[in-house]
Amino acid sequence: MNKTYLLAPGPTPVPEKVNLEMAAPMIHHRTPQFSKIFGEAAEDAKYLFQTKQDVMILASTGTGGMEACITNLFSPGDKVLVINGGKFGERWGKISQTYGLEPVWINVEWGQAVKVADVKAELDKNPDIRGVLVQASETSTTVSHPIEEISKLTRQRDDLLLVVDGITAVGVYPLPMDEWGIDAVITGSQKALQLPPGLALVSLSEKAWKQAEKAKCPHFYFDLAKERKNLADKTTAYTPAVSLVIGLREVLKNIKEEGLENVHKRHNRLARATRAAVKALGMQPVAPDSPADSATGMFIPEGVDGGKLVKSLRDEFGVTLAGGQDKWKGKVVRIAHLGYVDTFDTVVAIAALEMALNKFGANVQMGKGVAAAQEILLEAYCK
Amino acid sequence: MNKTYLLAPGPTPVPEKVNLEMAAPMIHHRTPQFSKIFGEAAEDAKYLFQTKQDVMILASTGTGGMEACITNLFSPGDKVLVINGGKFGERWGKISQTYGLEPVWINVEWGQAVKVADVKAELDKNPDIRGVLVQASETSTTVSHPIEEISKLTRQRDDLLLVVDGITAVGVYPLPMDEWGIDAVITGSQKALQLPPGLALVSLSEKAWKQAEKAKCPHFYFDLAKERKNLADKTTAYTPAVSLVIGLREVLKNIKEEGLENVHKRHNRLARATRAAVKALGMQPVAPDSPADSATGMFIPEGVDGGKLVKSLRDEFGVTLAGGQDKWKGKVVRIAHLGYVDTFDTVVAIAALEMALNKFGANVQMGKGVAAAQEILLEAYCK
Repeated sequence: MNKTYLLAPGPTPVPEKVNLEMAAPMIHHRTPQFSKIFGEAAEDAKYLFQTKQDVMILASTGTGGMEACITNLFSPGDKVLVINGGKFGERWGKISQTYGLEPVWINVEWGQAVKVADVKAELDKNPDIRGVLVQASETSTTVSHPIEEISKLTRQRDDLLLVVDGITAVGVYPLPMDEWGIDAVITGSQKALQLPPGLALVSLSEKAWKQAEKAKCPHFYFDLAKERKNLADKTTAYTPAVSLVIGLREVLKNIKEEGLENVHKRHNRLARATRAAVKALGMQPVAPDSPADSATGMFIPEGVDGGKLVKSLRDEFGVTLAGGQDKWKGKVVRIAHLGYVDTFDTVVAIAALEMALNKFGANVQMGKGVAAAQEILLEAYCK
Repeated sequence: MNKTYLLAPGPTPVPEKVNLEMAAPMIHHRTPQFSKIFGEAAEDAKYLFQTKQDVMILASTGTGGMEACITNLFSPGDKVLVINGGKFGERWGKISQTYGLEPVWINVEWGQAVKVADVKAELDKNPDIRGVLVQASETSTTVSHPIEEISKLTRQRDDLLLVVDGITAVGVYPLPMDEWGIDAVITGSQKALQLPPGLALVSLSEKAWKQAEKAKCPHFYFDLAKERKNLADKTTAYTPAVSLVIGLREVLKNIKEEGLENVHKRHNRLARATRAAVKALGMQPVAPDSPADSATGMFIPEGVDGGKLVKSLRDEFGVTLAGGQDKWKGKVVRIAHLGYVDTFDTVVAIAALEMALNKFGANVQMGKGVAAAQEILLEAYCK
């Protein structure tokens, strides 16, 4: 017997019912049958994005959505502010450079959120900056950046866009696109959306659409204006990823039924429970000041090889967590709260971590983290 | 009851067993478990492409693979020869223009294959052409272009690449990449590969990799050199479309087991049977001289509204065929032979077409097309 549990920050578990929906016989994409599905998915995606704007559904993973925002919104030579506080912040800069934009970097210490004052200072110093590129949740460091505060700096200006990678934030915690005046939001299917990887969802503000008209970076496959035009006819410019769109409609229905506020609360509860466990176990959180509710990262106790720990958790305990990325490789472990994950998945993750730490000689008291988490997880059952 | 049959040139039916494989619980992509699957799929893809070169697996549909070839192989200002004999040939030209290449167009009459002499004449007239962009099978017109003959013009030259959209040819009829010296071959998951849309597969020759080093068109998400580097470690640069890759391994195993030669023979048999039916029914094939074995297109008899015919076939008879595209909209019907399609699917398609034509008042003798097809389909059972 080999029961497994997936608690890494993407891909995340897919509900069995959604998997079976996607396994239904293939249908053609230029038919009223598929258009109905596609139209419903695109409509419910607006609810998820908390926007009245169209949400474009692209056959690519999240990075393709990020590239789409760069190439559809900017022109070579445009100055953009890159909030680089981890692997994905860095990616904003790399994509920008690839297309000839001029990134102004704010390098943020890993584990910290960007300071709004630093963003303001750079914007004041460089009034020709045309876009702020930031993660809502920087998955590599489990940090949440202060998007609402940054939006107050950008939304007054006509010539400045706020472009938010919401790949591990949309459907996790509030990121009300219209209310905050965010100009571009991106997410991917394999995070809070509980689907296999292969879809990117992108929505743009009116201000962004206006800037898109003047943008000169070349793009063909990722053509947001063309997709919007097709979306009006409930179709796509090129062949859509049919089975994943079928799954998307299904999960969006589920999210709507649970209610976005409850979805956010669930993620928050699992995150708080896990943070309480980390504290109870005397471990150091990697994002002490501004943790995201998408995943909780912690430093592995001295003397324990993080690579071996995560491998043993996966191959022996059957519990897939994530290790650290880049400079945190082997030093960090991350427990995700994303998507189709609930109380007892979180209990399993913490229990497994405690047991594996003991196996590798770290002196943590088994059950102590679990108990601390339970205190918070119980909230859901005592309303 | 509402039994349905999918016989359009993509998406094509997915085998039930493959659908269930893809519905298995999600796994993480940075694990030995997924690497094994990815590595096996990539290895068997070489067999499919008839090449010793790496085959890169991208999370996008076929158009993304076409764009990848343009941006990874060429630079702005490069002259390329575009064989425009249909909707997809035209797409080569549009992508080239988007990235600042200079297309030299050979406009081929719809339904005809390009003449090799015309290709030679343009290459002689423009010795600075750096690439020939062509479809092996132009899906919109059901024409097969003479790739082997064109490859004889390109493979002698170090500074000229032959880039072949094999989206409805790979796994349909022979396109031996190494033997013919083709420099880039692209396919998509939703055609002969019997999978949902969402994967593009691309392979490059040594000559193409050399030109890729000098290519200056910007690209980030579609970075073939980066994907090749990751492929050596059985992984991808960005998150792969996990469930589709799992399906890919499965269908490639099936194709290997059936044997590529038998797969080609099957497509050819179904195509010949359908062509015989078209002839027996006194209908005009759209590609009389160089038909592709991927799909068979025919003109709809005068007086019958093609749009209504195809709609009735789909919604009343339950049989999804394809209509005509662009200038052939409403005038043409196409029956596909792609992928998970065999004898009795073809019988169904022809029988349904005969019946629908009668419903709409066309004077065709029912059973006559079926009988003509049966004569050829019987071959498979009388070896």
